Amino acid sequence: VECSYFKILLVGKALNSCHATKPGMLNVHLVPHTHDDVGWLKTVDQYFYGDRNDIQHAGVQYILDSVVDQLLKNPDRRFIYVETAFFYRWWKQQTDDMQNTVKQLVNEGRLEFVNGGWCMSDEATTHYSAVIDQMTMGLRFLNDTFGHCGRPRVAWHIDPFGHAREHASMFAQMGYDGFFFGRLDYQDRNRRMVAREQEMLWRASESLTPPMADLFTGILPNGYNPPEGFCWDQSCDDPPIRDDPDLEDYNVDDVALVYKTNHIIMTMGSDFQYENANLWYKNLDKLIRYVNQMQSNGSEVNVLYSTPSCYLQELHRANLTWPLKGDDFFPYADSAHDFWTGYFTSRPALKRYERISNSYLQTCKQLEVLGGPISRKGPFGAGDSETLKKAMAVAQHHDAVSGTEKQHVANDYARKLANGWAHCQVLVSNTLSSLSGSSAPRVYCEHLNISVCPLTETSKKFSVNVYNPLARPVSWPVRLPVNGTAYIPHSIPTPPQVVPVSQATAAVRRGRGYAVNELLFQVQAPPLGYSTYSVSLLQNGPPSPPSPLPRAPTAVQNKFLRVTFDPETGLLSSLSNLETQQTVKLSQNFYWYNASDGNNSESIQMSGAYIFRPNTSTPFIISKTAKIETLQNSVVQEVRQWFSPWVSQVVRLYTDSRALELEWTVGPVPIGDDLGKEVISRLDSSINSSGVFYTDSNGREVLQRRKDYRPTWNLRQSEPIAGNYYPINSRAYIKDDKDQLTVVTDRSQGGGSIQDGSLEIMLHRRLLYDDVRGVGEPLNETSDIYPEGLVVRGRHLLSLSPPATAADTHRPLAQEVVLQPLITFTDGELHPSTRLEFSGLQAVLPPAVHLLTVSQWDQDTVLLRLEHQYQASESKEHSQPVTVNLQKLFSTLDMLGVSEMNLSANQWKDEMTRLDWKAESGTHHTGVTNQLCLLSPLGCVKTADLL
Amino acid sequence: VECSYFKILLVGKALNSCHATKPGMLNVHLVPHTHDDVGWLKTVDQYFYGDRNDIQHAGVQYILDSVVDQLLKNPDRRFIYVETAFFYRWWKQQTDDMQNTVKQLVNEGRLEFVNGGWCMSDEATTHYSAVIDQMTMGLRFLNDTFGHCGRPRVAWHIDPFGHAREHASMFAQMGYDGFFFGRLDYQDRNRRMVAREQEMLWRASESLTPPMADLFTGILPNGYNPPEGFCWDQSCDDPPIRDDPDLEDYNVDDVALVYKTNHIIMTMGSDFQYENANLWYKNLDKLIRYVNQMQSNGSEVNVLYSTPSCYLQELHRANLTWPLKGDDFFPYADSAHDFWTGYFTSRPALKRYERISNSYLQTCKQLEVLGGPISRKGPFGAGDSETLKKAMAVAQHHDAVSGTEKQHVANDYARKLANGWAHCQVLVSNTLSSLSGSSAPRVYCEHLNISVCPLTETSKKFSVNVYNPLARPVSWPVRLPVNGTAYIPHSIPTPPQVVPVSQATAAVRRGRGYAVNELLFQVQAPPLGYSTYSVSLLQNGPPSPPSPLPRAPTAVQNKFLRVTFDPETGLLSSLSNLETQQTVKLSQNFYWYNASDGNNSESIQMSGAYIFRPNTSTPFIISKTAKIETLQNSVVQEVRQWFSPWVSQVVRLYTDSRALELEWTVGPVPIGDDLGKEVISRLDSSINSSGVFYTDSNGREVLQRRKDYRPTWNLRQSEPIAGNYYPINSRAYIKDDKDQLTVVTDRSQGGGSIQDGSLEIMLHRRLLYDDVRGVGEPLNETSDIYPEGLVVRGRHLLSLSPPATAADTHRPLAQEVVLQPLITFTDGELHPSTRLEFSGLQAVLPPAVHLLTVSQWDQDTVLLRLEHQYQASESKEHSQPVTVNLQKLFSTLDMLGVSEMNLSANQWKDEMTRLDWKAESGTHHTGVTNQLCLLSPLGCVKTADLL
Repeated sequence: VECSYFKILLVGKALNSCHATKPGMLNVHLVPHTHDDVGWLKTVDQYFYGDRNDIQHAGVQYILDSVVDQLLKNPDRRFIYVETAFFYRWWKQQTDDMQNTVKQLVNEGRLEFVNGGWCMSDEATTHYSAVIDQMTMGLRFLNDTFGHCGRPRVAWHIDPFGHAREHASMFAQMGYDGFFFGRLDYQDRNRRMVAREQEMLWRASESLTPPMADLFTGILPNGYNPPEGFCWDQSCDDPPIRDDPDLEDYNVDDVALVYKTNHIIMTMGSDFQYENANLWYKNLDKLIRYVNQMQSNGSEVNVLYSTPSCYLQELHRANLTWPLKGDDFFPYADSAHDFWTGYFTSRPALKRYERISNSYLQTCKQLEVLGGPISRKGPFGAGDSETLKKAMAVAQHHDAVSGTEKQHVANDYARKLANGWAHCQVLVSNTLSSLSGSSAPRVYCEHLNISVCPLTETSKKFSVNVYNPLARPVSWPVRLPVNGTAYIPHSIPTPPQVVPVSQATAAVRRGRGYAVNELLFQVQAPPLGYSTYSVSLLQNGPPSPPSPLPRAPTAVQNKFLRVTFDPETGLLSSLSNLETQQTVKLSQNFYWYNASDGNNSESIQMSGAYIFRPNTSTPFIISKTAKIETLQNSVVQEVRQWFSPWVSQVVRLYTDSRALELEWTVGPVPIGDDLGKEVISRLDSSINSSGVFYTDSNGREVLQRRKDYRPTWNLRQSEPIAGNYYPINSRAYIKDDKDQLTVVTDRSQGGGSIQDGSLEIMLHRRLLYDDVRGVGEPLNETSDIYPEGLVVRGRHLLSLSPPATAADTHRPLAQEVVLQPLITFTDGELHPSTRLEFSGLQAVLPPAVHLLTVSQWDQDTVLLRLEHQYQASESKEHSQPVTVNLQKLFSTLDMLGVSEMNLSANQWKDEMTRLDWKAESGTHHTGVTNQLCLLSPLGCVKTADLL
Repeated sequence: VECSYFKILLVGKALNSCHATKPGMLNVHLVPHTHDDVGWLKTVDQYFYGDRNDIQHAGVQYILDSVVDQLLKNPDRRFIYVETAFFYRWWKQQTDDMQNTVKQLVNEGRLEFVNGGWCMSDEATTHYSAVIDQMTMGLRFLNDTFGHCGRPRVAWHIDPFGHAREHASMFAQMGYDGFFFGRLDYQDRNRRMVAREQEMLWRASESLTPPMADLFTGILPNGYNPPEGFCWDQSCDDPPIRDDPDLEDYNVDDVALVYKTNHIIMTMGSDFQYENANLWYKNLDKLIRYVNQMQSNGSEVNVLYSTPSCYLQELHRANLTWPLKGDDFFPYADSAHDFWTGYFTSRPALKRYERISNSYLQTCKQLEVLGGPISRKGPFGAGDSETLKKAMAVAQHHDAVSGTEKQHVANDYARKLANGWAHCQVLVSNTLSSLSGSSAPRVYCEHLNISVCPLTETSKKFSVNVYNPLARPVSWPVRLPVNGTAYIPHSIPTPPQVVPVSQATAAVRRGRGYAVNELLFQVQAPPLGYSTYSVSLLQNGPPSPPSPLPRAPTAVQNKFLRVTFDPETGLLSSLSNLETQQTVKLSQNFYWYNASDGNNSESIQMSGAYIFRPNTSTPFIISKTAKIETLQNSVVQEVRQWFSPWVSQVVRLYTDSRALELEWTVGPVPIGDDLGKEVISRLDSSINSSGVFYTDSNGREVLQRRKDYRPTWNLRQSEPIAGNYYPINSRAYIKDDKDQLTVVTDRSQGGGSIQDGSLEIMLHRRLLYDDVRGVGEPLNETSDIYPEGLVVRGRHLLSLSPPATAADTHRPLAQEVVLQPLITFTDGELHPSTRLEFSGLQAVLPPAVHLLTVSQWDQDTVLLRLEHQYQASESKEHSQPVTVNLQKLFSTLDMLGVSEMNLSANQWKDEMTRLDWKAESGTHHTGVTNQLCLLSPLGCVKTADLL
């Protein structure tokens, strides 16, 4: 099949699928499109079928039916489609004839895929590994179905609420030629409009050699909507073009008049439009005909059907230089008091569930490769990773993990993830059975974070399997709910400990478990492999272990860290790194901002699912003092802090750890006072941070943030708190010349550094008003188990280091939080022949290299992604080129060949030919350091006949 | 072209365009349809184009686009289309290819036209002549375009608010095999459901021999909507059928369950649905597939795509006997306090404008025939009757003349009529110029009813042309506004009179005229012809004629009638027929009902555009006495009554007239007291009417009405006034053995006889609330000229006769009101060669025969309709067979041949083969009298090569 678009890119001639433009005229590119949220006000299923149209009229099956019909009626017409989650589903229901028809439309460039991931991911709250997965899944479907004619050339993020640099970097590495979006800060847009900088070259990585992460980026003129008066969708009320000369209101001339202003792309469509595409196309046909007819009367406006790639091609032909962009587009404000920084934290429980589901999916995919075919059809039945892959892919949508969907939709995302887990559990059981030689039923405990596990609570003898998805060995503290007072875990170096379950944990279990104690021991697990531990009850019933002592500690410490507490308040008072001999003053407490209810004089904006707007800039303290209990044994030291009936925390220092763990529990947030609350944890330190702090971008590269400042324009700050909040995906830090305090989070959260030395992270939000951005519900989460308001528990891991070596700690630390071990159980005695330990790797990978992806591609092929995980210059030791020998990597796989692909695995690396763009000189971007090994960070390899 | 449907009707075999049914099963006929109002909340243009979708989402152009597309996708699918006003417009915009495609769909029975008139006419307020015209126009388009395959077999009035017997009679004579509707009284429906009488044989005329006016009539099970839960239009919210087994909510089984109940037709559609037909058909396809699949599991339900004619065919095959229906379906109530009897009067000015437009259109069409080709392209330019034909056709719609549209839509109907008048005026000028030999510019005065005519007000010499559209000579009083005090009209038998303009008239002119006097003289005009009168000013300026005397008259009389007044009150006190020597006591006055505002305890129904609901059963009197002036001369005697600033009346007796004229002027109806008002004129007489009165049906046959009674069920009366109101199109009467008092109206109005001897007619309505039937506006008419409320003027003509001869008076009287002379003017001296008189007929038609239609059909053919205008038994002299010799009818046309057609002129009479239906015996219907001549009442002839 000839594919006209690609032909021109290779031979440099005109795109024969793009309509000719007229050089001397204003060419208006009309781009018919629909924006189909993969869940928002309705679930993804409801959107596909057009169910629950009482909530919102939207039915994607009909959109695709209708658009294809209408494209066939006039070969001039064009359409772009974006969300493969929907397209894939529709495709499956089509006849062979229809599929062939659509292939023809794609080959002729009449139907063009843009973006093409499974969904249009959120950019603030997604982790790069999950984004790469979802993009890969969508693009693979297009590649498998349409070949190279179906490969999107343009990334298209018209709706996400701010834009991450890491996303741009990924898109560049996925081979996209350009990127268009709709939302950016209103001040930024205004400046760019004046300066004509609405199109730019985004240099999206400080570590990759240009143009590897350079991405041409354009801002759409009208968000993603049609210009006012030109919305002809069924859902719109604009007057149609009436060309019957019998009629009174002949408005064709009026319509044409509006076109004298600019040379632009016009997005002719919006949310779920084109369900009845005839309305759009019939009027667009007329518009084009009547406007272009006026050329014979001297008009210099030329209107044409177009697509983003045809428009991009024209921009490229212009052969201009473009301004460079080095930072990102966070935070997004659409008006002075309307900062979209609330969703960085909204629905913290869903955000955590999504994050551990990613960990679980990576494990599941690894075990699918390591187990081979038996993983999918083994002793425990049919298992698969596909279900969880799809659930994770839709969860990346910009109204999914972002927390900006309706409650019933959030429930549906969680339900889909749980269903994915169930399918993966069968696969994991099959593989572990195969690798260990034991077919004992495998038990999963998903509520260990609140000390619930029916098996360990009741069994006198069980085994614990700890699978480690990282390419290096890990040591990990295991905490199991038990009712005995003494246990023997076999083959454990440090003696196991039994400690009482905290009152905070007992309070949130709500009948789901009754363990009085926790069994605590440190385990080791090999790279890409597991260790197995047997546990036997030694002593049951009383005497129970000594209760924790209600006393004020002065300090806890291990060989790496020392933490002191203020005996008056029970709060942290200092943190020391004993290896580097550095100490900072450090206190920590919980506060809440009073969410604006819209009743103030400046503007009526309320805090809501999207928007964070505190009523005052000073948060309310929850308690100046904490009641505390302490607990100390050979594995861990804990200071349990109780602040209020709805806020508690455990400050925990494991014997082997370089990080201090703060396990916070917040909720149900009280609203009896009719005040919405946005709860933060705030660290106040002696670090001289000078108005600067740092946050990661999608869990990967780190960006500097400066208070009341934006790198590319002269900010007029109008929201002193919300306007200084940024997304924290996996870490944030403050530093001065000597000390860097890093916090690693277990999910995406929003945060800021409002005072020097201070770092605050928002944990939970409970709001009483909708913020009028469409979701139509206040963010006021309850559930069957927590009818009085959701309780959320999470962890912050603190490390203190000299800035020069801080990454050496926080990079591996964050990795362990993102890809955590999977703990599974079997009841009773292990069979003597059971293989207790296994590693899928022949050798540990170098510390700088992260094994990002191991996933079965097809029967004989595995998709492997190796990543250099250190940013340029952040580590003297690790920010260096590094080489990996693939031949000796896996222990169970024979590698017969390797082919390198682009990041999204839909193009061979050596066929990747992106458009070249010229950057303006003298831009404010920092120099670029090449620190890449041959295999390249985020590069991927595809092997053939591996097994 | 073979047309499958008609083939079977002729040969008696199965319809091959109808899907096979299953004899042993419940067959559910799914009829996809759209109901497209020819104006309602939006104008007809706005509906066609989909403009003003902010008012209501509706765009008919897209409906037809979409339905044709979807029919092509699956040959099983069916659709019916109803309103030719829209279809015609869409058809004109299609390519030849598309037109051929649609022809194929029609030939194969996949697209079926039902009803097929230009619109779906109102049944309460339309005059039969205008209904026949609009039906003829729509059916002709279908016939010309699609031939016999496009001829509708089924009449389909799913929305009109009650059903007229005369409509059923017309449909039968138009060749329809059956009739379906949706709205009838809720008590009637309930009884019919219990008695299984929802299908019946309507014997729709007392005058025509059965089965000539017999019409099989079916009541649709769910109005015209789909059953609850099965609305799959874009505008609906019902859940789609989700057949993807991956999904949670697999509801196909639930959907099928609902189908166990009945053997029915299901109307799958509603107002302006199928704009995106894919939604409907995709789900209907699935419904049919899944429900019929269940037959293999024992289900006895068979679902099929169908049309009303396929369904009708199955009913006919059942070979049952059906109950007979003899009366009509008025009034319509959808609940105990919700009688749709307000619209009988709503928008009285529009109703009058529609009625005189009909008169004007008949004249225009006659003069098009009489003038020949010069009429359309003569000295005054291009004229046509087509524009007014179309305007009149859309005005018949059940939200047009009914008065139930929004104000801006009512304005649009009036604007369209005015535009039609303008086109006809050119045609009339051309023809009159041709017939008279004078090319003097012709002047039209459309406001003679309020004494406004710039020409006569200022000219010293002018001529008056009086064209009479009736087939018999008429005598007519002409009243012209003048400023002189004496005039000489040449060749007038009775001396002309000059009388002062009444104060009531002066008050409503609002600057549109300044005449102080009216010139009054009786004119004669020949059948289908004109007379011309020259008028010269004799005396200008003062002395003005004597002012009318403000005295209380005791009586006025001419040689036919005597009227007495009560000197105390100024009201009428008696009426005598001097020829028959009969006298009745008769008083008349004006009252208003206080419109319900919904705030009472029984129900919240308000009076509105549709619904009449007085707050109390006793109307409020406007004034017990009238101030009066009298005026008397050789042409007329007038008693001018003044009741209030907003109610006045002239009681007028012309010297040559057998009718007493009551010219009422009502408005602006005051609403300063926040009370909606429904104003009536009430006659109270000594006639012993015994709870019975009579009203005409669409201006033709008369039906008996009995208080608190319905002929076909045991009425529980819940609204003593509104529940006794009926539509009066042209006349109503009360009678006893001796006296019949008949009122002929000049427009459609509602009325009732609440007390014996009493007859009340509603004149005007001004309401403050919407009645929640969709129009969404209170009926509160104002205009630029009457910003404080519309003023309406009209006439009631009273006659008193013995019942046996009353029709001899009221039939011709009503005819003169319906088809009134057209008066036109030329300024200055007439040229001596001017032909002053003309008649298109060689001979006067017999009194029983009305020349209903004379209209150019094509170049060489004229459509002629002759009507026997007397009902069976109503006149000893005239209710008799009568013969007309067509050969010697016209004076200017040579008749070369005649072919008889059905009433709507879309079928040769001798090819008219309707389905035969068996009626149950012993029904309550009166015997039928055949009183038809060979040419038949309402029969029509089509001649070839006439000119």
